[in-house]
Formats: sequence, C-alpha cells, structure tokens
Amino acid sequence: MSKNNEEFVKEITPQSEDYSQWYLDVIKKTKLVDYAPVKGCMVIRPYGYAIWEKMKEGLDRRIKETGHENAYFPLFIPESLLQKEADHVEGFAPEVAWITKGGDEELSESLAVRPTSEAMFGEMYSDWIQSWRDLPVLINQWANVVRWEKSTKPFLRTSEFLWQEGHTAHRTEEDAEEEALQMLDVYKDFVENDMAIPVLNGLKSEKEKFAGALRTFCIEALMSDGRALQAGTSHNLGQHFAKVFDITFLDQDDERKYVWQTSWGVSTRLIGALIMVHGDNRGLKIPPKVAPHQLVMVPITPKKQREQVLEESDKLYQELKDKFRVKLDNREEHTPGWKFNEWEMKGVPIRLEIGPKDIEKDQVVLVRRDTDEKMFVKRDELIDKLEELIEDIQNKMLQTAKNFLEENTHTASSLDELGQILEQKRGMIKAYWCGNQACEEKVKDDTKATIRVIPFEAETGGSCIACGYHNDDNKEVFFARAY
Amino acid sequence: MSKNNEEFVKEITPQSEDYSQWYLDVIKKTKLVDYAPVKGCMVIRPYGYAIWEKMKEGLDRRIKETGHENAYFPLFIPESLLQKEADHVEGFAPEVAWITKGGDEELSESLAVRPTSEAMFGEMYSDWIQSWRDLPVLINQWANVVRWEKSTKPFLRTSEFLWQEGHTAHRTEEDAEEEALQMLDVYKDFVENDMAIPVLNGLKSEKEKFAGALRTFCIEALMSDGRALQAGTSHNLGQHFAKVFDITFLDQDDERKYVWQTSWGVSTRLIGALIMVHGDNRGLKIPPKVAPHQLVMVPITPKKQREQVLEESDKLYQELKDKFRVKLDNREEHTPGWKFNEWEMKGVPIRLEIGPKDIEKDQVVLVRRDTDEKMFVKRDELIDKLEELIEDIQNKMLQTAKNFLEENTHTASSLDELGQILEQKRGMIKAYWCGNQACEEKVKDDTKATIRVIPFEAETGGSCIACGYHNDDNKEVFFARAY
Repeated sequence: MSKNNEEFVKEITPQSEDYSQWYLDVIKKTKLVDYAPVKGCMVIRPYGYAIWEKMKEGLDRRIKETGHENAYFPLFIPESLLQKEADHVEGFAPEVAWITKGGDEELSESLAVRPTSEAMFGEMYSDWIQSWRDLPVLINQWANVVRWEKSTKPFLRTSEFLWQEGHTAHRTEEDAEEEALQMLDVYKDFVENDMAIPVLNGLKSEKEKFAGALRTFCIEALMSDGRALQAGTSHNLGQHFAKVFDITFLDQDDERKYVWQTSWGVSTRLIGALIMVHGDNRGLKIPPKVAPHQLVMVPITPKKQREQVLEESDKLYQELKDKFRVKLDNREEHTPGWKFNEWEMKGVPIRLEIGPKDIEKDQVVLVRRDTDEKMFVKRDELIDKLEELIEDIQNKMLQTAKNFLEENTHTASSLDELGQILEQKRGMIKAYWCGNQACEEKVKDDTKATIRVIPFEAETGGSCIACGYHNDDNKEVFFARAY
Repeated sequence: MSKNNEEFVKEITPQSEDYSQWYLDVIKKTKLVDYAPVKGCMVIRPYGYAIWEKMKEGLDRRIKETGHENAYFPLFIPESLLQKEADHVEGFAPEVAWITKGGDEELSESLAVRPTSEAMFGEMYSDWIQSWRDLPVLINQWANVVRWEKSTKPFLRTSEFLWQEGHTAHRTEEDAEEEALQMLDVYKDFVENDMAIPVLNGLKSEKEKFAGALRTFCIEALMSDGRALQAGTSHNLGQHFAKVFDITFLDQDDERKYVWQTSWGVSTRLIGALIMVHGDNRGLKIPPKVAPHQLVMVPITPKKQREQVLEESDKLYQELKDKFRVKLDNREEHTPGWKFNEWEMKGVPIRLEIGPKDIEKDQVVLVRRDTDEKMFVKRDELIDKLEELIEDIQNKMLQTAKNFLEENTHTASSLDELGQILEQKRGMIKAYWCGNQACEEKVKDDTKATIRVIPFEAETGGSCIACGYHNDDNKEVFFARAY
C-alpha cells in the first residue's frame, strides 16, 4: 500500500471497526452529500446527484415503457384533505411538516408538506375520472417529499428526500393487482440490472404494510453488514382511497363503481443501498450503469514528457467521450498516485492510465475497481475491451452481491436460534410464521428482527418460530434486522 | 368549419373577446394544468409536464455543455439564514411560506420554504470553497420553489412552481460577469431555437433587478396580446452574498479574497409564454422541438375497411416511432373529425391521416398545424418529408413570432405618445430614458409600462421620455406592460 493510499484509507473508518462511521465517512469524503444547516436535511452534491440522475434515467425509461406518464402535483396538502383518510393520516401525522404562515398572514388552514401524495392524487382523480373509458389512469411524479424524522442519516432517513411516486386507477381489482405486481417487477429489474443489487420480492405483513393499503409488495436488499433495507414498495390500495375521495366511474354496464388503485415508489434511499451493498474499506464501488464516470483517465506525466502525454491523452479522450462516460483527470496539483486513490475511493469502475511508455507501446493500462485486475490493452482493441469490461463488471458486481445474499441467508427453527444467528452473523433468516401479529411482535421484541418479506412462493407447513404451533398454512418468511 | 370544429372552438373564448379567458380556456381544455385544492397551486397534468420534460432536456443539455453540474439543496431555509442578507430578505419575506410545526412539535426556529436558494448555496459554498483551485464552482439545480402570491394564474404566477436555478462562484469579477452573460446567451439560444420564441436581451434597471444582485440581465418576450413577459434572468451577484455568507478563498497570491457570484433561472413560466406567443383561437401551437408529440396519426376507418386500416396504421406507427415522437390515436369512441380538432387544439405540429384510399395509393395525408397546409405524401418519401417538415415548422414558427415582435415594436418620443401606443397597440416601445428612477416610476404611474430591458448596444443621446432632459448618455430602452 503506497503512502498516498494509506492517507486516503485512514480517512475512512474500516467497516469492521464501526460500520456506521464507515458509511458516514464514505458519503462525506466522496462528496456524495453534505449536511445542510437544517435539521435532518442533506445537500446532495454533484457526484451524488449524478448517480441519482443515472438512476432516474433507467427507472424513468422503464416507467414510461410500461405506459405511465409523468406529471407534477402540488407540494402542499390542506390539512382537511389529508385527514379524509383516517389510517393514512394516523400513519403520517407524526411526521408532517406544517405550513401555518404565508408572508405575514396566518393561514386559516394549515398545509402539510406532502409526506406522500395519495390524498392529492385522489382528490384530482375524483374529478378527472368519469367513465370506464378514462381508465386506467397511469401517472407518476418525480418529486421531493418531507417526513419529519427524529433520527436521520443521509440517504437512509432524512427529513426531505427525493423519490418517484406512481399513482394509478383501474376498472377492476385484477387490473390493480396486476399493475402493483408489474411495478414490483419493474423495480426488481431496475435495482438488480442497473444497480447490481439483488433483491427478495414478495408481500409485507399487515403490520408492515403502507397506511391505507390493501396489500403492500416490496423488494428487500441485504447490506454488507447483514442488515436488510427496504428498497421499494408497490401498494394495491384496493378501493380504500376511492371511497374516501369518491373516485367513481360509469362502467360499461352503466353502473357507477369505485376505481381500484395502486401506488408505488422508490427514493434516494436506494443510493444508501448502493453504498452499503458494494462499498468496501477503500470507499465506493459503483456499477457502470449508474456510475457518473464509467472510466477515469489518469495521464502519467514525467516532467519531460508532460506535453506529449497530455496531448495524447486528450486525443484519446476525444475518441472515447461519445462512447463512454469518461472523465479525464489532468489536474496539475495532484500526483497520479493521489488520483488513483481518490477515484478508487469514489468508486469509478475502470481506471485508465496512460504514460510515455504506454504511448511508445501503443497501449494503455486498465485497472478494475471491483477486482483490482490490471490489464495492458492495445489502443486498437481499447474500445472493444472497454465495452466488454463494462458489461463484465456490471454482471460480476451483481453476482458478487448475489453470492453474499445467498451466503448470508440462514434458516432458524426456534426463537433462540434466530437470536443466535442475529448476534453472530445477521443476514436474512428464513423461519416459519403462523400469521399472527402477536408472534411477529414477539420476534421483534426478543430479537429486533422484523418480517422483511413474505415470498410469493413461500414454503409452507412448518412450526411458527414464535408460538411453536404447527399449521399447514404457516409460511416460511424472511426475518432480518433492518435499516 | 365542420360541426365538430365549431363545438371545439366554441369551448375556447376567442382571443379578441377576452384574451385572459382564452388563456384559461386553452390551458384547461388541452389538459395542460388543473387547479389544485390549494390556493394558488396548480397540477401540471401529463400533457403539460411532457412539454416541461422536453424543455428540461434541451436546457439541461446546454447547462451541462457549458460545464455545470446538477445537485440538490434542501427545500427548507432556516429563518436566521434567510435574514442574513437584508435586501434579499426584504425582497422575498412577503412571499415566504413558513413551516412552524414538525409533527406535534412547535419548531424553535421557523423554516422558510425556499423562494430561491442564494442563502442555502451561500452557506454551503462558504464551507466548500477554500482555495483558488476550488473555483469556479458551477452548480445548477432543478427544483420546486414557493412564493406566496396573492393573485395567481397557472404557469404565469403560482404559489409553487418548477424551475432551475444556477449558482456559481468565481475568482474574479470578470469571470462572474462572463458567466452571467454566458447563461443569458444559453437562455436566449434555448428559448429562441427550441421554443421558437424570439427575445430581447439586455440589462434590467436598478428598480427591476433581483434583490441582492449587482446587475440583472434578462431576456424578454412579447406575447400575442402585446404584453411583455420576462422569460429568464441571469444575475451578477458581485461579492454581496460572499460577504454576507463569508465565502472566501486563498488566491494564488496567498491573499484571502471574497468570491464573485452569479445566479440564473428560468421556470415553468416559460410554458405560459409558449402558449401566448404561438397559440390561436383554435388552441395551442407547439414547436416540434418541445412538442410531446411531433405528429399524431389519425386512421380513417370506414366500417368495412376498419381492420385493414388499423393494421396498416400500426405498421406505419412501428416504422415511425423510433424516429419521431409520434402518437397513434386509434380510439374507437371518437370520429376522425373529432380527433382532428382535438389534436389541433392540443397543438400537435403535424397530423397524419391514413385511410383506405391512401393505402391504395401508397400515400398518407399530412396537415401542418401552423399553416393548415395539406399534403399528399408517398410512403417511401414520408420519413424524409417529415424530417423536412419538422425543421421547417420549427423555423417558420420562430420567424412568424419574430415578425410579430418586429411589427409590434414602436418608438415613442413623448409620454403622451407612449400612452397612446399602449392604449391602441401595446407592444414593445422604444424610448429614451435618463436613468433616473423617478422618471421610470413616472412612466409606470402614468402608463402602467415598465422598463423591460436596457439593450446591450442601446442607442444613446435622445431626450428622456419622462423628464424631457437631453443627455448624451440617455439610452433608448424598451418599455411595455408586462405579465
């Protein structure tokens, strides 16, 4: 390890020493975020926002390909509107930021800063939807939302965050169920293939479902410290909000009916997952598909050949820049070694070095961030090699994370065993559950683990881990301690 | 005019009868926006948001090409932070929405919902900027902002709107001036070439400049009712905010200095300009570059040949959809005539009709929204023709708007004349001004016209329109009544 490397590395607390501090060090040193002078809020800095932009691109494309349109609904929701739906308001009221003054004027009614927009969409849909011909309505919005959190951590839990929220209305229950499941698939596809994060998918328990939903589907990921993170949710809202907001349509049979609805969202929280699934003691590791820079070029410039190398690397940059997201780092004030370490910390998938000897030999040096593999590549093979590498790194990162998930999935047949696994290894723990909320709560009280997901094709028939009763309908679910 | 057409048209108040009502009819009937159940807020519906997305694409590309990066700063600004800069807070305080409660808790300090983010960027920049090597800092954000407005109109003035705000910091005054002017050029290029809206550019008067700026540059457009609209502003902030927020750097000469800053923004207000510059009594007219659909396909389907036509039009749609933004309208419940009128109202630049006779003749019918020109085009020439048309429509719409601006630019040499022109024709009115704020205010009091812009290369030397004094430095400026 070079001196430079040591300097960089010592700025980041090792994962094994203090995982939480490692996380905070990484996001700060790599300039993903900074703390804002407002409690619980973050500034997403350009490097962090560039990741979000790539994520948005990949997800927005999928959302549109499945027939949805984007729109923008107001930030403020009148208190009376939010209160129309009792479960919903009960779920969100403790977290709402309230506007009570506009200019010098006290408002006659307080306005909630949206914690989520079911109420606002519901109110508008009741106006827009009249006939079966108006259905389905498939709208998504990219927006900021606010939830007044007591304890916060950048990306994972902040008072304001960015997300997309889809809100749809359908003619039949089947259509709504199909939509909710389709969007869960879209999320799984996006998170696995673009972010290289494997997820478990399935149903949330009644206790863990969204306030006001009939059913909540979710994708769950496993962080490298063995804790789970909810990566996205898709809700079948049934006719719950339709009844509250009076969203009805005249059906083909001339009967007036309530619509069936869904809502679904993922947020900047996923960036937290990206950091924790792929990162290591040297910093970030970003999968090529969402990396702001897929490769960084570092010219090696001994004084005498400086001009020549800079000229050559600029020429190469021009060749590459329309094919890849490439960054040319020709800062004078830092040594190549310093740059190697900085870009490694920032998780750029590929480093390209070019120096006088390489120019002589008509080659460049490539180094992978994920495996540290170093390659000498002829210039005329470079573009093919880069394309191949980018694909390979993306696949390998997903495979590595899949292996980790598999290795850290355990089975427990008693509460004691569950507790032991959690103390020793954490991870996702499969165990049977009888379906009673009391048992779910007992597990949580005893072990701090919650039911992360009930798989769609769960094994059935074992004895409940909490009460011990055997029932043929008992399902094998995933427990974990979660973010 | 067909019966259908009459029905559609009678839903829109003619411009000559009531321009303001025409505007409100158009935005509502074309489903660009709807009124939200929150005072002064709007819902931007999918069709309106799709225009904004195309606008964002074109502008974001230009912002990045000029070296800027996107980021995201918090929605909330603590009262104490906002109050650091006196002029700034005085300018915005009457319009600020205040958060005073989080959950059940009264906040110890009220939080402003950002009306603009100079204060927040300033606070962070003072931390991030230490050395001349850190400069320039070139950051932009796409965000929602809130200004508590008493009287509102969708897109033109709403309590919440969407915009981008760039905030930059530089080493020297020249660098900041260059940046502010560069971004004004970027705006002019974008608004003229993508939105087909010609603009005048130049300086704002002291009275009209941004609260806290050294100088405000602007682009001004002329609506079809003869009123002006400020389409974008770029501010040279000098060292004003740098001193307030203590943003300093160690320069190459080892001296600690304050940075020089700029900020610049355009908003969803531009959609209002788009509507009013191009729209007519039949509805919207959207330039191809920002149109959600560049062309709409309407199959003509007599009962007997229905299947054949739908099959053929779907085949054609598949050929076109990767090259153009094309919408295939094969709804069963509406007649072709109804569809013609609806898409005309929605301002789609080109309509493509395809019926049994066209299929027989291996042709389609194209109709331009801007000129009503109807063309029969052979299928094997279609793609070339569409490409040509799209370019031609874009250019023609800009030219038409340029002609209108020219025809509606007048010269006044006395306050009486200015008043007469405003009463009879409105438009942009060139007149000399001595530079005194008293004269500027007198013009406004007498005629409701304000100085829209002081051109960069203004004519000089005439007599001031208000006080009559002659001075060689008097500049010819543009007056208008404005939105």
